[in-house]
Amino acid sequence: MTATDIARHAPSLPLAGRAKDLVGSMIDSSTSLLAAQTHDIVRFAMGSPADEAVPSEEFREIAGTILDASSFTYGATEGEPRLLELLVKYLAGTPDPSSEDRLVITTGGMQGLDLACKLFIDPGDLVVVESPTYTNGSATALSYGAQLLEVPVDDEGMRVDMMQDLVAHHHRPPKAIYTIPTFQNPSGVTMSLERRKALLELAHRWGSVIIDDDPYGLLRFSGQDIPTFQTLSPQDPLLFSVRTFSKILAPGWRVGWVDADPSIRQLLINGKQAMDTCTNVPNQHIVAEYIARGGLDDHLASIRVLYRERKDAMLDSIARHLGDRVTTTNPEGGFFLWLTLAGEFGEIDTRELFEVALADGVAFIPGPALSPGGRFRNALRLCFASSTPERIDEGIKRLAGSLEKMVA
Amino acid sequence: MTATDIARHAPSLPLAGRAKDLVGSMIDSSTSLLAAQTHDIVRFAMGSPADEAVPSEEFREIAGTILDASSFTYGATEGEPRLLELLVKYLAGTPDPSSEDRLVITTGGMQGLDLACKLFIDPGDLVVVESPTYTNGSATALSYGAQLLEVPVDDEGMRVDMMQDLVAHHHRPPKAIYTIPTFQNPSGVTMSLERRKALLELAHRWGSVIIDDDPYGLLRFSGQDIPTFQTLSPQDPLLFSVRTFSKILAPGWRVGWVDADPSIRQLLINGKQAMDTCTNVPNQHIVAEYIARGGLDDHLASIRVLYRERKDAMLDSIARHLGDRVTTTNPEGGFFLWLTLAGEFGEIDTRELFEVALADGVAFIPGPALSPGGRFRNALRLCFASSTPERIDEGIKRLAGSLEKMVA
Repeated sequence: MTATDIARHAPSLPLAGRAKDLVGSMIDSSTSLLAAQTHDIVRFAMGSPADEAVPSEEFREIAGTILDASSFTYGATEGEPRLLELLVKYLAGTPDPSSEDRLVITTGGMQGLDLACKLFIDPGDLVVVESPTYTNGSATALSYGAQLLEVPVDDEGMRVDMMQDLVAHHHRPPKAIYTIPTFQNPSGVTMSLERRKALLELAHRWGSVIIDDDPYGLLRFSGQDIPTFQTLSPQDPLLFSVRTFSKILAPGWRVGWVDADPSIRQLLINGKQAMDTCTNVPNQHIVAEYIARGGLDDHLASIRVLYRERKDAMLDSIARHLGDRVTTTNPEGGFFLWLTLAGEFGEIDTRELFEVALADGVAFIPGPALSPGGRFRNALRLCFASSTPERIDEGIKRLAGSLEKMVA
Repeated sequence: MTATDIARHAPSLPLAGRAKDLVGSMIDSSTSLLAAQTHDIVRFAMGSPADEAVPSEEFREIAGTILDASSFTYGATEGEPRLLELLVKYLAGTPDPSSEDRLVITTGGMQGLDLACKLFIDPGDLVVVESPTYTNGSATALSYGAQLLEVPVDDEGMRVDMMQDLVAHHHRPPKAIYTIPTFQNPSGVTMSLERRKALLELAHRWGSVIIDDDPYGLLRFSGQDIPTFQTLSPQDPLLFSVRTFSKILAPGWRVGWVDADPSIRQLLINGKQAMDTCTNVPNQHIVAEYIARGGLDDHLASIRVLYRERKDAMLDSIARHLGDRVTTTNPEGGFFLWLTLAGEFGEIDTRELFEVALADGVAFIPGPALSPGGRFRNALRLCFASSTPERIDEGIKRLAGSLEKMVA
């Protein structure tokens, strides 16, 4: 049932106009859907870190040691002072150094996107998104009344070269450009240096905010780093950077941050106060303690190795079980690869495949759920991060079986 | 600096129209403000439970025992199944029983208010609020473009008898009526049964949503329970109930819930997905385990005693140090009482008093920060819950000293 249907079925309620635009996200909803299944399922759907990639033992030990009364009260809206201090110190060693006057701790990266829209998006504003994109992010823009413009992605990331023409049809510049430049969700591709420069130039010309959503940038396992937007255009007031500990530590914490121009920090704090007062305090304390102990760099080094093995394993399994009946991207980091059906599978709708495959014990996200306009019916997103190589092989085998069943 | 000022000072940024309405909240900002002070301050400002009223030891022990990989991954947007199940069971023994098809776990009660506004408030909609009110809640409505209408509060709660006339001036019914009916924040008063019935009748006539924000209802320490809106009008689709563990367990968890008509549950889930994906998972697990162990009722019984002592202590101290130069409410539960300056203090602006008193070592929230229109310059909110009777006496003594200094 779509949001519009629901809005129609709740006629006794004076819903806001935007209720019909609360489209939700299959990405998020798959958590409940999969939890409700009782049979064995290989899970390529959610973008969750591997259990093995989460230092659960250490987290539990820290929680059992450091939590005290100060962890259970209200925290400052902008974030716990110790976490902010440690974060600044940590970021100094990354491509995106920052300072406390630019940072606000958020309830996961998702709240960073909510804040970006709260501050910048008026109803009817044009917002450029990648196609395919992280539709939870685009759903947030929709919930603020944005009109979305999908710009295709290829192996060098968003087709910035096409953006100008596509925008011209709308007779107004975009208010914001939403991009996941590095190890993009869902395609796994990374935007090239040339495209990044071109995007910055267009954003400056148009006065558009760049919402730079980068949950995976620290998870490069092959190839060379490409300069970030912050490196290319330091202190750029049009740059709004959304970051999170969800992929590098654990999503359950719901601890992320935004990095934005100091002139809007107070507005960010005001906006966050109207959302959830403060990000949950015990988890900020635990994340801070984890960073303070100095293990984050080693942890990142080890999970990069793990994820490279898994990406390789998935591509091997795909080659073995699906051969040239599909094409894929070949990510240099992150969690996802993008698979497009070809040959005898080329006419299959991956939304129908989803039902068959779920029954057969393998889950993924169908392409149309990753495009606001429902494009990519013959493609799908696979998360290689959450499963062991053995399970990956089992899952791809099941997927191949489902596909063969559908063309039989 | 107001939000409008900030919006004016960030001219290079294409802020949304609503940016000027992101007014923030002195209630929340006082956390940072007070943390930055280095001298001893008696804290009557924040609505925080007493440290002694939070089972910190048990929370830490639970965290150190039960957290595992399942706590650190994404959770279902509607909430962790075990917490939902235990919550339904727990609510069965309260005045507001519920069922899973009506409940969504939220990131504190605050996110419940954000969701209510997301689903119901269009820009320009009239929203009734109590005067004084919890201005963080009214700030959320403002952030969605609401036009606020303040309806006075007296010892029987919102002056529902005045609401109809006040609404008539606006030539349209309110889209929503925002009320904290029990142990109201900030006044501490409780809406009478007659007023509750009258409010329900008006809401039904107008088709207005009642946003029933009740964080304190389980904290009655004297007097008789008054039937809740849910008791008076069960399964009412116009009733949107916002609840939280913040005051009965601990605010740092950021775990609350909304109870609403099942027809809009999917819209709530969609809306929450666009906000923060899911409420932080480890804290949901810890709260669930705490409830499962069966200690919540005993805990509530013991903190009711604690808070009654503190309320009595504060009224005693006020009588002793301030006598008839002030009047106060006399709450039967919750965290707050409302103090109005009279006699020789009657002309003092509590915003100015705030600065003097802060320097003198006592903090509160000035009346104008608790009214969207800045009313109540000669009143203030005192939280009696967070301090011991000895500290309460010291704080009221300091407050009396500051007041005497100002009229000297």
